[in-house]
Amino acid sequence: MTEDSLLSPSWAGTEVSSLTGDQALLTALLEAEAAWGEVLAEAGFAQAADAQALRRIGSDPRAVPGLAPEELARAAVGGGNPVIPMLAAVRAELKASGAGDSALHRGATSQDILDTALVLMVNRAGAQILADGYAAAGGLAALAQEHRSTLCAARSLTKHALPTVFGLRAATWLDGVSAALKDLERALSRLPLQWGGAAGTQAALVDFAGAEEARGLTEQLAARLGLPATGRPWHVQRQPLLQAASAVAGLSSALGKAAGDVLMLQRPEVAELREPTAAGRGGSSAMPHKQNPVLSTLIRSAAISTPGQLSTLYSAAAMAQDERPDGGWHAEWAPLRELLRLTGGAADRARELFGGLVVEAEQMAHNLRLDGDLVLSERLMAALGPKMPGGKEQLKDLVTRSVQEGRSLRELVTESFAEAGAAEPERLPELFDPADYLGRAQEFIDSAVHDFKEQNDQRTR
Amino acid sequence: MTEDSLLSPSWAGTEVSSLTGDQALLTALLEAEAAWGEVLAEAGFAQAADAQALRRIGSDPRAVPGLAPEELARAAVGGGNPVIPMLAAVRAELKASGAGDSALHRGATSQDILDTALVLMVNRAGAQILADGYAAAGGLAALAQEHRSTLCAARSLTKHALPTVFGLRAATWLDGVSAALKDLERALSRLPLQWGGAAGTQAALVDFAGAEEARGLTEQLAARLGLPATGRPWHVQRQPLLQAASAVAGLSSALGKAAGDVLMLQRPEVAELREPTAAGRGGSSAMPHKQNPVLSTLIRSAAISTPGQLSTLYSAAAMAQDERPDGGWHAEWAPLRELLRLTGGAADRARELFGGLVVEAEQMAHNLRLDGDLVLSERLMAALGPKMPGGKEQLKDLVTRSVQEGRSLRELVTESFAEAGAAEPERLPELFDPADYLGRAQEFIDSAVHDFKEQNDQRTR
Amino acid sequence: MTEDSLLSPSWAGTEVSSLTGDQALLTALLEAEAAWGEVLAEAGFAQAADAQALRRIGSDPRAVPGLAPEELARAAVGGGNPVIPMLAAVRAELKASGAGDSALHRGATSQDILDTALVLMVNRAGAQILADGYAAAGGLAALAQEHRSTLCAARSLTKHALPTVFGLRAATWLDGVSAALKDLERALSRLPLQWGGAAGTQAALVDFAGAEEARGLTEQLAARLGLPATGRPWHVQRQPLLQAASAVAGLSSALGKAAGDVLMLQRPEVAELREPTAAGRGGSSAMPHKQNPVLSTLIRSAAISTPGQLSTLYSAAAMAQDERPDGGWHAEWAPLRELLRLTGGAADRARELFGGLVVEAEQMAHNLRLDGDLVLSERLMAALGPKMPGGKEQLKDLVTRSVQEGRSLRELVTESFAEAGAAEPERLPELFDPADYLGRAQEFIDSAVHDFKEQNDQRTR
Amino acid sequence: MTEDSLLSPSWAGTEVSSLTGDQALLTALLEAEAAWGEVLAEAGFAQAADAQALRRIGSDPRAVPGLAPEELARAAVGGGNPVIPMLAAVRAELKASGAGDSALHRGATSQDILDTALVLMVNRAGAQILADGYAAAGGLAALAQEHRSTLCAARSLTKHALPTVFGLRAATWLDGVSAALKDLERALSRLPLQWGGAAGTQAALVDFAGAEEARGLTEQLAARLGLPATGRPWHVQRQPLLQAASAVAGLSSALGKAAGDVLMLQRPEVAELREPTAAGRGGSSAMPHKQNPVLSTLIRSAAISTPGQLSTLYSAAAMAQDERPDGGWHAEWAPLRELLRLTGGAADRARELFGGLVVEAEQMAHNLRLDGDLVLSERLMAALGPKMPGGKEQLKDLVTRSVQEGRSLRELVTESFAEAGAAEPERLPELFDPADYLGRAQEFIDSAVHDFKEQNDQRTR
Repeated sequence: MTEDSLLSPSWAGTEVSSLTGDQALLTALLEAEAAWGEVLAEAGFAQAADAQALRRIGSDPRAVPGLAPEELARAAVGGGNPVIPMLAAVRAELKASGAGDSALHRGATSQDILDTALVLMVNRAGAQILADGYAAAGGLAALAQEHRSTLCAARSLTKHALPTVFGLRAATWLDGVSAALKDLERALSRLPLQWGGAAGTQAALVDFAGAEEARGLTEQLAARLGLPATGRPWHVQRQPLLQAASAVAGLSSALGKAAGDVLMLQRPEVAELREPTAAGRGGSSAMPHKQNPVLSTLIRSAAISTPGQLSTLYSAAAMAQDERPDGGWHAEWAPLRELLRLTGGAADRARELFGGLVVEAEQMAHNLRLDGDLVLSERLMAALGPKMPGGKEQLKDLVTRSVQEGRSLRELVTESFAEAGAAEPERLPELFDPADYLGRAQEFIDSAVHDFKEQNDQRTR
Repeated sequence: MTEDSLLSPSWAGTEVSSLTGDQALLTALLEAEAAWGEVLAEAGFAQAADAQALRRIGSDPRAVPGLAPEELARAAVGGGNPVIPMLAAVRAELKASGAGDSALHRGATSQDILDTALVLMVNRAGAQILADGYAAAGGLAALAQEHRSTLCAARSLTKHALPTVFGLRAATWLDGVSAALKDLERALSRLPLQWGGAAGTQAALVDFAGAEEARGLTEQLAARLGLPATGRPWHVQRQPLLQAASAVAGLSSALGKAAGDVLMLQRPEVAELREPTAAGRGGSSAMPHKQNPVLSTLIRSAAISTPGQLSTLYSAAAMAQDERPDGGWHAEWAPLRELLRLTGGAADRARELFGGLVVEAEQMAHNLRLDGDLVLSERLMAALGPKMPGGKEQLKDLVTRSVQEGRSLRELVTESFAEAGAAEPERLPELFDPADYLGRAQEFIDSAVHDFKEQNDQRTR
Repeated sequence: MTEDSLLSPSWAGTEVSSLTGDQALLTALLEAEAAWGEVLAEAGFAQAADAQALRRIGSDPRAVPGLAPEELARAAVGGGNPVIPMLAAVRAELKASGAGDSALHRGATSQDILDTALVLMVNRAGAQILADGYAAAGGLAALAQEHRSTLCAARSLTKHALPTVFGLRAATWLDGVSAALKDLERALSRLPLQWGGAAGTQAALVDFAGAEEARGLTEQLAARLGLPATGRPWHVQRQPLLQAASAVAGLSSALGKAAGDVLMLQRPEVAELREPTAAGRGGSSAMPHKQNPVLSTLIRSAAISTPGQLSTLYSAAAMAQDERPDGGWHAEWAPLRELLRLTGGAADRARELFGGLVVEAEQMAHNLRLDGDLVLSERLMAALGPKMPGGKEQLKDLVTRSVQEGRSLRELVTESFAEAGAAEPERLPELFDPADYLGRAQEFIDSAVHDFKEQNDQRTR
Repeated sequence: MTEDSLLSPSWAGTEVSSLTGDQALLTALLEAEAAWGEVLAEAGFAQAADAQALRRIGSDPRAVPGLAPEELARAAVGGGNPVIPMLAAVRAELKASGAGDSALHRGATSQDILDTALVLMVNRAGAQILADGYAAAGGLAALAQEHRSTLCAARSLTKHALPTVFGLRAATWLDGVSAALKDLERALSRLPLQWGGAAGTQAALVDFAGAEEARGLTEQLAARLGLPATGRPWHVQRQPLLQAASAVAGLSSALGKAAGDVLMLQRPEVAELREPTAAGRGGSSAMPHKQNPVLSTLIRSAAISTPGQLSTLYSAAAMAQDERPDGGWHAEWAPLRELLRLTGGAADRARELFGGLVVEAEQMAHNLRLDGDLVLSERLMAALGPKMPGGKEQLKDLVTRSVQEGRSLRELVTESFAEAGAAEPERLPELFDPADYLGRAQEFIDSAVHDFKEQNDQRTR
């Protein structure tokens, strides 16, 4: 089942869309109950048959009356969360199937179940985001290497500033994406089970199992769900979720920065890049000549939207009143999901975008010469200025004349030396060669790609 | 069809949920096409039969292959919006049914259709929000009147400051809600048709109809859809939507303020209010004595969430690049919908909350006396201080003693006059009577209720 | 005194910077006290000499010990607002100067004074924002008129879509700015005096003046301060401020949209616009050829920043607990000021930007032809397609060939008619003329300018 | 020098206020230049005397004409950042003092200097925030230990849910604060030097020093400034700043959560806590009996404000266009500073609040019994229900009767056993003892305190 929305092309049809849908969430809620039931049964606190019945229900909730997500969604209003009606439906089904409820929700509270399902959702969507994000980063690394010598203009406040290479631009995108991925991996690996009972003391659990056993049971639950052990409940201190969410939002911003650059660079007047094409994408029915940069547009759209979702999570965390909040907890769920979806969509589109981005090296070279030699003015002022017959001030004047008269700076310089009867410096041709003024570009590309590969290797190892 | 979500009890099951769902949006998209087709046909620019066929499709989209929202949602990714695949499906259906496409999308662009559908969605959800909001305000007006003399403590920075009446608190809530409703009504009434063609010139339309006729056609379209005439396209200046959205968010904040007060006032230790109960609401399976303030919690949850959505709309509007944006437009859709849903949910819950709020007048009176006479210290300092034997400073000392020794201030005052051999001022008993220190509370209540009723009358007239 | 900040070039040095500075705020705080003192004195509730002494202090606070803003700022921590230490300093000064304090703060509370000062600040900064905003809009209106026939490409998702005229782009910017200005004017004109005493009842005031008189006194205060009469206190329902703030933010977004377009259009590769130059602006010391678009950059920077400030105001309003909030009120002050400053800066820069924007009509024409005739493909598909020998499909093929082979579409069309032995349609040359495909552009420009002028006239009348 | 603001009592007067002020920022800007000058001089790329002159200027900027922050702030408008006019003033001063400018800004760009100053500001303010934050956490740890057995009610959706101990509440606050501090420490330790030259290639630097040497020089610069070596420029990938900022915001939310609880718990009707008092804090001139919870109010105010600032940083990062952004960079500065200030203020107030929080254990015990035995209903349903003569349903009925009739549940239970002629379970008295139903509270407290101490030790070691 999908929950793609007509108004959300930025993430429609992606894996993350499915992984964060209501059906997936319901499955995770039932999974939390079933895993807990099994842990209890193994320890002798519940009937094995009851735990098995519970697991069966969780494995096919669609077959169970009252467990349709839409129905639960509406029934959730009465108690403010979906676990309460879900338990009623599960209990009825257990009864109908002749099983007991000894393994159901014993010593747990609805927040334990919902928080655990949210953590599972974050982990699963997060894993997909990482997969797509690393694939996108791989595309960037390939672009960076392939174009380590592809000259183009570096732009500052929209203006041509210096020469650079396209590979370095891609490497900078890569650095942003890699850093966000690393942060996200770390946050996910540290997102623990949240299990505290009605007030964060696990009192009901301890009441039937004893304190020592209670610890063991929650550790087994965590292990069974593939989560770090809870240590302590974090029902009303939401730092683990905030750290995961800010990493997700960071990735969205990093991808959005890159997409913004692509959008600019593929404009008809700039034409240095082209989005990869695919059947059914980017066309316009009314204007058959148009090929819209849909992938970048959707990534950028996501990046505009994520900061607001993130801010709600920080507000909600600050409003986590008491031992269970009167609204602050509830306000967290939807933005957390939307943040995963937006970033998941962006990562999915980015994988495709950076895997197939077309680089127009000739056009880059062409644009680099748009102002003739002026893109080298920084260098010339420093390296040539002092050697000019009239010093730096003369060169500054020549730059101004070059701008105003549209004449080649190189010519004007040669003229000036001639007029002064002075010999041109030997290194002059190199000084006017953009490829000679790239600083540490290659080194930065290499180390960015190297660092990314190492990071990627550690991940897959 | 509903699109209630497991994670959104704040608006699940409401009218606004349905009015903003994908099915409703699809209906609105088809409605825009059908209305335009009819306008064209009436003016002789399309075949009447084609327009009728188009209307038929719009009236029952579920019967049409390819028009399922989920399918369109995924197909929307290719072009970045759902209108493109919708047109393909409609065109196929027209063909299959033997009709022509002369009335379909002629001279229009996908943004025209989607913007119009969004405006219809805002209007319809907005009308429901107004209905629920006015009902909630009506409840507040009744509370304000009924409790115009119900004494309670006014609180400042959480502390008891002065006496007030509960009716004035309700009147202040009413003022906030009324102001937001008025603003919303105004914004909705001014949300015009957005119709500009591919670049805001209506060039394609003018090409076949002529400029004079084009104006007439768009005016007829607006009339047919019940919208103010477009005047000019606002494809990339989104002030009309921003103004509607900020009014919606304003209502959410006004309701959230009131809900926050209710949450505090119904706490067990305060116990001045109780939420209305209803079967299936607020109960806790594990803790049968608990009656949770679910309505207020959900309203508050919505109010925590709306500011982030609103901020995204302002960001998106600022990013409305070119004649159609590369992401800024797309980023607007989902937050606009979520804002309507959150506020629609809050208004729905508020209608019920304020329609049945239980006021515990005795407990209010009890709490008012929690610090004995100290809740009147402001008044006593001003009105009694100068008449004390030892002047203001003496009274200040008595206040301090009253706090520290837990003794009645009135007694201490009487003692002081006795010790000084001075006669107590005549008006002393009144000075210590909270009901005598209510300022313009009654007048404020009356005028708030009066203003609301006038506003409400104007609306229904 | 200014409070320009090293990190805020977007508003440094503007009038709004001064109007929102601490010194201006302190003046407004003292003005509120002085006006109230005079109202009291006129009505016989305070000594005229005391009121005069108070006014004197307010007219030159720098001369008064303890009234330095920095000192008050630090002293404000103890009570959570600056009015408390201000009153202490004023009281000491009154005493030192031999005056009494009969006219000082009688029946008022610190929130009354601070809210009134905030309203005065919003009004004064707002007036300046309106002045600059209208001047900027005037520049846009002039550009719209002057360039009503300046052909250029309309862009959609970054791609050339259709021909348009630059005047229409300017008119669309104008529409956004005008709508925001109108909204702001309205919000400012309705921002009333906030005066409620310690708990919104005006009890202390009524205690010495009586209820009837209290109303008259607050009305006189409002009149003296040039504000709409209070009607009722709005101490904890902040809709009036939210409406003003959202209008301010709307203007920022409208200006940001225009600045974003300018930034794109003045890029070296596009070169359709140039920012006005001025001594000391936009230069780069290291790269003398660069002329940075600083005005647009600063406007855009402001537009990125305002949505977050606005969201805080909506959050704070929702958290306006009790009769005076425990943080929600305090959280409102700084973002309100920053919102005024950012938008004030943007309006100031926009006045200059749009007053001197240089339009490169030839380059616009050049860019329009970048894809040859393809910018007319929408029209040609509709108007020429059906007349082609091979129908629409043939034209679609020709468009594709034109893109792929870089050949003129017009030539390909002529070839096709020749090959088919068919005569070209008579209107063919017009069909290929961009100036013939502008729809209602002129009409839209004229009406936008007309509406703006009317709005402007009403304002100045 | 301070930049305390009349409207920002949440951070006025703190160390962080000074550390983030314009004077501190200017000092950091000059420090970056001076350190770079020294590095250059040591390597023979600048005159040692020039570097010394530069350092002298940086050590006392107030003595230098043109270097007043307000003056620079206004001059910053022309180029969009303050470094440009600063360099002019420094150059003039060097000249006036007879020194050369060989050590000034060689191979650097204004973004290098400003980013470096921002990093220094974040580090210094961050160190202070950590110091205050750890002190606050220390206070929480002490409260947690001291009150490990102080019984009180745990609240869920505002209602009493179960017994807990105040120490566990403090431990949960501690967990949130500790996690945020750890995250912040980590982010600060990884915030590297940003040094890329005009376009992120270090081309100008390499031009005079060579690539190999360039790397060494930037590493020496980083070391001299106490920063991690740059590795690569991050001029337009802002993940390092985002990670630091989100950690700062996380701390603000964690403190805000705790402050919100304190505000509720110290309300007159609850009265379980009291803020520490101090001369000049929390008093009300008009209402001498009031002691306002100013510290918590200011912390909460900060927590309401930080999410909006954080969202702007994520938006700005996504808008980091090109090799130097046209607004996205500029939009980052002020919110970054405000975020530090707000959180710095909160940490400062929290240190004092948690260092002196007064716990009213008796009142906690009193409130715990507000509903008699009902606070134990969860336990009783599970542990006693099955043993009741009439089973769970009977106990549920008794709970309802207890609520409705206000009678002791214990009595009703005893009655029921008597009526049924059954013997009461042996463990009945314990079942009704709140102290017997605390689950793992002590264990959680101990481990939270232990983990914090270990974290704190590692830090100070």
